[in-house]
Amino acid sequence: MPKDAKLNFTLEEYAARLDKVRAAMSAKNIDCLVVVDPSNMAWLTGYDGWSFYTHQCVIVQHDHEPVWWGRGIDAPGAVRTTYLDEDNILKYPDHFVQSDICHPMDHLSEVLGEMKLDRGSIGVEMENFYFSAAAFQSLQKHLTNATLVDATALVNWQRLVKSEQELAYMRSAARIVEAMHAHIYDIIEPGLSKHILAAEIFRTGIAGKDEHWGDYPAIMPLLPTGMDATAAHLTWDDSKLESGDITFFEISGCHKRYHCPLSRTISLGTPPQKYLDAEKAVLDAMHAGLDNAKPGKTCEDVAIAFFDTLETHGFKKDNRTGYSIGLSYPPDWGERTISLRRGDTTELVPNMTLHFMPALWLDDGGLEITESVVITDQGYERLARVEQRLLVK
Amino acid sequence: MPKDAKLNFTLEEYAARLDKVRAAMSAKNIDCLVVVDPSNMAWLTGYDGWSFYTHQCVIVQHDHEPVWWGRGIDAPGAVRTTYLDEDNILKYPDHFVQSDICHPMDHLSEVLGEMKLDRGSIGVEMENFYFSAAAFQSLQKHLTNATLVDATALVNWQRLVKSEQELAYMRSAARIVEAMHAHIYDIIEPGLSKHILAAEIFRTGIAGKDEHWGDYPAIMPLLPTGMDATAAHLTWDDSKLESGDITFFEISGCHKRYHCPLSRTISLGTPPQKYLDAEKAVLDAMHAGLDNAKPGKTCEDVAIAFFDTLETHGFKKDNRTGYSIGLSYPPDWGERTISLRRGDTTELVPNMTLHFMPALWLDDGGLEITESVVITDQGYERLARVEQRLLVK
Repeated sequence: MPKDAKLNFTLEEYAARLDKVRAAMSAKNIDCLVVVDPSNMAWLTGYDGWSFYTHQCVIVQHDHEPVWWGRGIDAPGAVRTTYLDEDNILKYPDHFVQSDICHPMDHLSEVLGEMKLDRGSIGVEMENFYFSAAAFQSLQKHLTNATLVDATALVNWQRLVKSEQELAYMRSAARIVEAMHAHIYDIIEPGLSKHILAAEIFRTGIAGKDEHWGDYPAIMPLLPTGMDATAAHLTWDDSKLESGDITFFEISGCHKRYHCPLSRTISLGTPPQKYLDAEKAVLDAMHAGLDNAKPGKTCEDVAIAFFDTLETHGFKKDNRTGYSIGLSYPPDWGERTISLRRGDTTELVPNMTLHFMPALWLDDGGLEITESVVITDQGYERLARVEQRLLVK
Repeated sequence: MPKDAKLNFTLEEYAARLDKVRAAMSAKNIDCLVVVDPSNMAWLTGYDGWSFYTHQCVIVQHDHEPVWWGRGIDAPGAVRTTYLDEDNILKYPDHFVQSDICHPMDHLSEVLGEMKLDRGSIGVEMENFYFSAAAFQSLQKHLTNATLVDATALVNWQRLVKSEQELAYMRSAARIVEAMHAHIYDIIEPGLSKHILAAEIFRTGIAGKDEHWGDYPAIMPLLPTGMDATAAHLTWDDSKLESGDITFFEISGCHKRYHCPLSRTISLGTPPQKYLDAEKAVLDAMHAGLDNAKPGKTCEDVAIAFFDTLETHGFKKDNRTGYSIGLSYPPDWGERTISLRRGDTTELVPNMTLHFMPALWLDDGGLEITESVVITDQGYERLARVEQRLLVK
């Protein structure tokens, strides 16, 4: 570790995380874990850089410091951002990058062989953006003495309950998203072009608020208007806002890669009754759900209370209504563990953090009023404080 | 197609693209192609949305309009952004999303069965961020009457030579990146915090220039200073710039998802002789490379001229020095086809677009002076005009 490496957590916290992961590995009889998810890599070692478009991983063993492995030009980034000894930062030559004749994972197999880790049970994250089918085939081909075991989300599950330092970063992200929504409300008006609004959202999100500087969010701002808001994930263009337009803003503050997503919807002028009805339904249902957001209750309890209440108002939502949040990299700010939906019986415990996401996409527009919360001893705490209603300007 | 769907290209251009892809499929005896790469999906159908964090694809057949398949809440986005008939927009239920008991690709197999496409030769993009090992396993398990064939980059290769409309969008992106670099140079000074600088880069990049509105780039701005610039892909924090600092800016303008990346380096005060030497080496070598950037020459010709000249100056670079660019989604603005390196014998033809990327990462900092170019009948054209030197302020 260079003297000026910028760690976001104490060495003790990284050690505790490693202990948790090793225990989870033991429970699944995994000897060696190949961690490719950039958020898991960061959580375990501090590694931070936009290098995940080429193959890289952290190798976790039971009796050895984690080993970072990646593209040669990214190894200095691992030196700069992780606590790892330089001997544990390994690199592959550049001809492996985006080649159609060899695969970086061919090199990883060699490395595992040299470390005598090409045997026993090796965990891999089968369902991950950064573990392609070809990556798996390469490991299968070369690691003939090992058994490859699915360890999807093994590390993610260890990240569910946040430390105080993690919560502090999420509260910084909350200050940022509050500032973003305040600025949107300040400047939105008929005639404003969507891309100018998007530019201001970015500026506020990255400039941050006071000492809470902004990092890039794992999902770009979504700000669809009118019919475009019938879709969940459209971004923006250069169209101009008009009087009567209803626009939702699905955005997140981000600080040191920790997120606080929060959505609000703004109507330019009095919204139609249908949207006022939808607002009432969403808020009632969300409060019914959040009444169950406390230790001892399950994700499903929250979801069922929400969905049942929503239906009494005549609205139906057929997708999940929330998920775990924290440290993340594109393309998803969710942790990809728990979901607020029927069938998820994960019990809530203090310091879990969730994005409660009761979005409604209707036949002529969308309504999003969401909350990011941390589970407390008694219930929950809203991370960000933004007026909890359909905003009208 | 809804009357107000916003297509970025004519139906004729989409049809011509489809013809090219079908011909490439025929050459590999592929009956049905499952396209998961979001940039390939967009290029083929117009589809645009931040929905690629859940599984989705475009199904290409020889005798049927392409079919979009994805998560239910994203189907309205496909209606809004593609030319496809609504009958060809298919959705899967939300319980498949990030589940540990079922996989969206289980559903895709069913859909392929109903379409009688669960036989013959099915092409899949084995090496792609959006085709996980688990996705492949699901298809393997269910499509027992079909042969899964590797079709990695099959569509990407059809995108190499740009149309006039595509070039127009890349020229818009060029105007944007020029404005971004101009603004950086205007405001950079000792005492400025990096995150404020990043916020301004975003604001300028999204606000764009005149009618050239900005879309989000597929790689976030990289602006490392000093020792952080020994690494290739670090982003920013809240540290303050100091006199004597050398910072590189690896950024891209983006318009309608088309990119024009361009890097420049700024020294606050007179740079050390070593950096002036590096500047001379990079520029000489880049010009030697670009002298070969013309029809009839190969990618390797460009690369060898570059690397050989660089070495005569006493500098060595052990990674590729460029790649194809165009339409892209995170996490990579490259097209993942050709690379400027030894061994790539792809012949250059007019309207190919390349990011010539002769970055040097030294032992105490980095130097990036790059150019995005389009191959012309006679040679090449620089897409963006930013002073081609180590900038000093």
